[in-house]
Amino acid sequence: MPDLPSGNAAIGQSGGPTAVINQSLAGVVEGLKAGLAASGKVKRILGMRHGVRGLVKSGSDGLVDLTGINAAKLEAIARTPSAALGSTRDKPDEAYCERILAGARANDIRYFFYIGGNDSADTCRIVSEMAAAAGYELRCFHVPKTIDNDLLENDHTPGFPSAARFVSLALMGDALDNASLGGIKINVIMGRNAGFLTAAASLARGQASTGAAPADRPAPHLIYLPEVPFSTDAFLADVEAVYAKLGRCQIAVSEGIRDETGAEIGPKLMRVAGEVDAHGNVQLSGTGTLGDGLADLVKSGLTPKGGKAPRVRADTFGYIQRCWPHPSPVDSEEARAVGRYAAELAAGGEAHASVIIVRTSNALDAYRSECARADLSAVAHRTRHVPAEFILGSNDVSAVFHAYCRPLVGELPKLQKL
Amino acid sequence: MPDLPSGNAAIGQSGGPTAVINQSLAGVVEGLKAGLAASGKVKRILGMRHGVRGLVKSGSDGLVDLTGINAAKLEAIARTPSAALGSTRDKPDEAYCERILAGARANDIRYFFYIGGNDSADTCRIVSEMAAAAGYELRCFHVPKTIDNDLLENDHTPGFPSAARFVSLALMGDALDNASLGGIKINVIMGRNAGFLTAAASLARGQASTGAAPADRPAPHLIYLPEVPFSTDAFLADVEAVYAKLGRCQIAVSEGIRDETGAEIGPKLMRVAGEVDAHGNVQLSGTGTLGDGLADLVKSGLTPKGGKAPRVRADTFGYIQRCWPHPSPVDSEEARAVGRYAAELAAGGEAHASVIIVRTSNALDAYRSECARADLSAVAHRTRHVPAEFILGSNDVSAVFHAYCRPLVGELPKLQKL
Repeated sequence: MPDLPSGNAAIGQSGGPTAVINQSLAGVVEGLKAGLAASGKVKRILGMRHGVRGLVKSGSDGLVDLTGINAAKLEAIARTPSAALGSTRDKPDEAYCERILAGARANDIRYFFYIGGNDSADTCRIVSEMAAAAGYELRCFHVPKTIDNDLLENDHTPGFPSAARFVSLALMGDALDNASLGGIKINVIMGRNAGFLTAAASLARGQASTGAAPADRPAPHLIYLPEVPFSTDAFLADVEAVYAKLGRCQIAVSEGIRDETGAEIGPKLMRVAGEVDAHGNVQLSGTGTLGDGLADLVKSGLTPKGGKAPRVRADTFGYIQRCWPHPSPVDSEEARAVGRYAAELAAGGEAHASVIIVRTSNALDAYRSECARADLSAVAHRTRHVPAEFILGSNDVSAVFHAYCRPLVGELPKLQKL
Repeated sequence: MPDLPSGNAAIGQSGGPTAVINQSLAGVVEGLKAGLAASGKVKRILGMRHGVRGLVKSGSDGLVDLTGINAAKLEAIARTPSAALGSTRDKPDEAYCERILAGARANDIRYFFYIGGNDSADTCRIVSEMAAAAGYELRCFHVPKTIDNDLLENDHTPGFPSAARFVSLALMGDALDNASLGGIKINVIMGRNAGFLTAAASLARGQASTGAAPADRPAPHLIYLPEVPFSTDAFLADVEAVYAKLGRCQIAVSEGIRDETGAEIGPKLMRVAGEVDAHGNVQLSGTGTLGDGLADLVKSGLTPKGGKAPRVRADTFGYIQRCWPHPSPVDSEEARAVGRYAAELAAGGEAHASVIIVRTSNALDAYRSECARADLSAVAHRTRHVPAEFILGSNDVSAVFHAYCRPLVGELPKLQKL
């Protein structure tokens, strides 16, 4: 039996919410109840309202006591999308982390669980190191979450399969809509730095890529990831070739596409200057500007002299893709498991860790995964990109990606054409 | 037994597709097979590719023979969203209708079924009158379809319940997303002339309106329909009141909102001139301009002098709301029924009709509807608007609307807050 500190546990949720982030919350709570709370090492299980914001608040306004929550209510919360505790966009620096440590001390917190992306892993890392330096025993655990699927060490991240399911379903319906009326349809998908979610648009095809030319592929005909340099000339030529042959073209494009110098395309196409956030990023989601800019580009580029402009429409999927209330079953299960595993690592005596997902069987009908441990520094503040083996040419994803992604999203409707 | 003409039947689909428009196609086909085809009056069942376009084409390129289609394939097509035959945006005038009549004669068509909105009913009416004047026996039937729910005589229209289900689910997830991170979230919903679909956003609340002030309502806090004159000053005051109290605000707004003179708000807020279609309408869907314009308005209107702008995001739901592959079960059933009923009217000797839906029981757990017949002229070329009894003040819908809409969308997830 390892030598474990006695005190309270705190759990928080950070960053953009997902459809299954509350499964992870429930997983940590039930893992603690079965382990450290049952053995008396954890007295109270506290939820941080709006992530670490809840802990740095003076008094107990920012904390909610989950110790006595009953199983039925916890289960109902687990099935509810978005962060039940509230989330935050704060990315703590050293000074902020000092305040987190002070909040932990003030509330006798000895176990700290943070559900989020690579910034949350970094917060865990900094706080863990500060606590060690100060001689305050604090165990810090990062629980993975991001629809962007951009955490290192993980086969994939909780939240991604459900968002990928939404994108697959959306593209399936939209492909048939586009086929029925013709024209050019652009769909802008989330993921500023990693194109995994945009790549999931390919699942709408119902088959792996065969390497066919764009006009000979099932829709979506063209897929543009941020990992592949985007050229507006090549884009127009791609669209023109499909449209000329089929009278229609369905496109999936990441909000984060960049040119060969790494500069984002979105801001360059904006009709007016976009909003810049606290981190210096131009706002890409929650606005239709990239889609509208690309639509303008296609209209002006593909209208024959004196001729009629093609029908071009752009939809930007926006926030509904990340909290759609019908998640992927695999995702719900795994999000629960990573939370529970974090509590088990704590009970096993780990001082700090990031929980990761490892795939153990890749077959569609026999998909399996396990949780494992990684160092916080291996995950913190770093971004995973779509690997080369998932990419096919300049405007498609590979059969390897299909084999990777298909088992994650659950059952897809079987569609029938005439 | 009525005196019925012998010949072929033609079926077409028109306008924006829906998630269940193929149920109606399947309904007409199976209704004909069980009736007029079984009795030998209908020789061939022909599908028109891209609506009446398929009939005015010379030769048989525009027609597909459905006479021998097997039940399993028909069922699979029925479950597939969007128009399997292809659709069209053509709105035939008299000259075009002459060509339709010529196409009907050339293909020995005696029964004409058109699945669509009020323009399709009008096409049926004109063609029917022309045929009668020319002494060519042609039976014309309009089968209702539109996510806008804007057909007169109908309790509601096939396609609307599924789109309303999508909007309800989207607002449910988005409300929790907005609650977790705060800020102001604008959702732009389809329906240029009728606000039924925007009104369906209210179902995300899980309860009927109690008449509470916006900040005391479950989200969405504010709902703006095209039927209620939109004032930007009142809008800003509404948003400010909710945001001041809650630190967040979720808004549902129709793409077709208008000021007190009837002028559309969208074009007035556009950052650049929008596209104008063949009917003189400015493009509202497939672009983020209205949402972005409203977001700009809120940002500039609600930023305190020298202070920080609130976080404002806008999503425009676009085309995915009308062909989402998981329709409302009630909608699937009713869309099938209206198609079958049209074939039954034909077998019963009707010369022309529009099929309508009549609600016979309004209880949530005992909802029932029936098909009935209306004159084409009662439905053709006219628009139904959200009635006054469905509207509550300037920014909400009533409990009467909730009772009307809730039974249509099917089961909604039960969400749980902490």
